[in-house]
Formats: sequence, C-alpha cells, structure tokens
Amino acid sequence: MLRVLLVNDTDKPIAELEQALRAAGYEVLPHVAAAAGLLKAVQDRQPDVVILDVESPSRDTLEQLAMLHRHAPRPVVMFSADGDDALIRDALGAGVAAYVVDGLSPARLAPVLSVAMARFEQQSHARQRLDELERRLGDRKDIDRAKGLLMDRRGMSEAEAYAALRQQAMKQGLKLADVARRILAMADLLG
Amino acid sequence: MLRVLLVNDTDKPIAELEQALRAAGYEVLPHVAAAAGLLKAVQDRQPDVVILDVESPSRDTLEQLAMLHRHAPRPVVMFSADGDDALIRDALGAGVAAYVVDGLSPARLAPVLSVAMARFEQQSHARQRLDELERRLGDRKDIDRAKGLLMDRRGMSEAEAYAALRQQAMKQGLKLADVARRILAMADLLG
Repeated sequence: MLRVLLVNDTDKPIAELEQALRAAGYEVLPHVAAAAGLLKAVQDRQPDVVILDVESPSRDTLEQLAMLHRHAPRPVVMFSADGDDALIRDALGAGVAAYVVDGLSPARLAPVLSVAMARFEQQSHARQRLDELERRLGDRKDIDRAKGLLMDRRGMSEAEAYAALRQQAMKQGLKLADVARRILAMADLLG
Repeated sequence: MLRVLLVNDTDKPIAELEQALRAAGYEVLPHVAAAAGLLKAVQDRQPDVVILDVESPSRDTLEQLAMLHRHAPRPVVMFSADGDDALIRDALGAGVAAYVVDGLSPARLAPVLSVAMARFEQQSHARQRLDELERRLGDRKDIDRAKGLLMDRRGMSEAEAYAALRQQAMKQGLKLADVARRILAMADLLG
C-alpha cells in the first residue's frame, strides 16, 4: 500500500482529497500544513509519494522542493491554481514529477499518481546515468593528471606512471582514481 | 501561435477537441487518422506539439513515438484510456511528455499542453548534457588510445605523443579527438 504525504499550502479543506486517496487505495499520512516543513516531514514520515497543494509555487516552496530533490527524492505531484509558463518551468526544474493546474477530480487521482511515479523513476535513472558519466569523466581526468605528475616529477614513462598507480591501488585496496586523487592532494600540500 | 497536430487513433470524434484547441488559441493542423503515420506527418507539417489520442498505446505506436523522438523530437501529449503502470512507463520511455488517462475537459487543455512543453524542454536539455558528457568521455578515450599507440610504435614519450597529435590537429584544422580517431582507424587498417 503506497503511503501519500499531503502538504496543503492553501486555504482549501483537504478532507475530500484525503477521502479520494483512501478510496483509491492509498495510505494517507497525517497532513502537513505548509510547504516550509516539506523536507523534514518527508524525512520523518517516509512517504512513497508527495502531493503538494499550492495557490502558486512560491520561491520558498521551490527551494524546499529542490532541497527535497537533493536530500530525500520522492515523486511530487504539485496541484497549483497558477498555470504560468515560467512557474511551470521552475517547478519542473525543482524536480516536480507532475504539475496539475486547478485541482483534479477524484477519479483522475490514481492515474495522475501513477504517471508521476513512472516519471520520477525515469528521471532517477537519467540522473544516475548522468552522475555515472560525470564520475567516469572526473576519474579519467584525475588519473591523467596524477600520471602526468609522476612523469614530471619522477621522470617516469607513461607506462611506468600507470603501473605505479595500479600498484598503489592494489596495495591499498583503493580504486585507481582514488589513488590518483590522493597523489594530487599530496602534491598540492607539498607544493 | 502554436501549431498542434492531432493524431486520433480511436473511434471517437475529435471535433470537440479541435474546437477547444482553437478556443485556447492554438492553430490546429489537419488531423492524422492513425499513429502509424506519426513521424511522416510531423516531418511534413512541422507542428510545435503533438496530441496523440489512443485507446491504449500499442507496440507499433510506441515504436512510432521512439522514432519521432530520435528523428524529429516534439512534445507529445498522449491521451489514453489505459492507465496500466507498465504501459505508462513504456510511453514515458518512448519520450511522451505528458500521459493523460481518460480524456480531458477543454478547460484543462491549455495547462496540460504548457506542462508538456516545459517537460519536453527540460528533457531536451538533460539529453544534451548526457550527449555532451558521452562525447567528452569518448574523446578522452580516443585521445588516450592514440597517444598510447604513438608511444608504443614510435617510442615517443607521453609529452611527445601529445605534441604530435596537437601538431597534426593544427596542421589539418581538426579537433584533437578527430586526429586521434584517424590515427586509430589507420592503425586498424595497417594492422
């Protein structure tokens, strides 16, 4: 059973929404009254999905969302009365998985949550691929720089420098890139 | 004025949808009757956004979408009567910018299209960043391999091999990575 956290940053009552969620088979966690407590509430209550109801996403709300996206990512469905293009872009940029303008009929709730969760999953994979590529590129650069340093300072050939890195990595049970970063840090320190 | 291409792969009439789009300020292009012609229709008519109405996204429709995504990417809003989780994932995976279950009231049309266009833009940027990182990683690998080849075969030092690559690149007005790839291709050819 999926656990939903409702954050109601509007004056509207949410009893009907809570009822519709329960009817659609979700467990509804005690709701939060303001977007300001979003990250903490998610960390405390560990929902599977977050519904954030706002009149319009404020700067503060977008910052809370960006923090959530970094520290405790969850699929977020934003209900907003404001369909302004720039706001929509900002909300998606802050990691919102679905942006729904002007509320929702109870019957549509379940499919909107399904789409938001699939979108979240898709974006998590894309993010992981990006992180992985960035890591590999960074590793390669650090290894190249460390090799260059050994070649410069110790008069090693490229093959010797690489062999020295590999030997250290095996001896210390580290990855090649981590050995490279330690060498670079030491060189910075020793000048 | 944004140009919308409607693809109606259902038995439903679309006059009402067309009217709602016009009322919301869109230019409605002559509609297409089956998802099979999607890529060709987009290439011919150059819409800004595509609405694809289906009972349920079939394997063929998803393939058309994936082809569109590769060859003439556009924001695609899919209206589907089918809210199955696996289908939603497949449709998002094929590049759909919005998946809406069970039609839409005319009043919601404009915000749904806005969100879909913002999502499309966000995903295009993410895709570009990924392509750029893949390219840089590939370039680095090819340059390293070409340097290694020169060091092996010509007995050059790392610095000499790099200098030789740079010199060729300047002489031929090519990027370093392109010179590296020509060297690798030649080495493959010559054995």
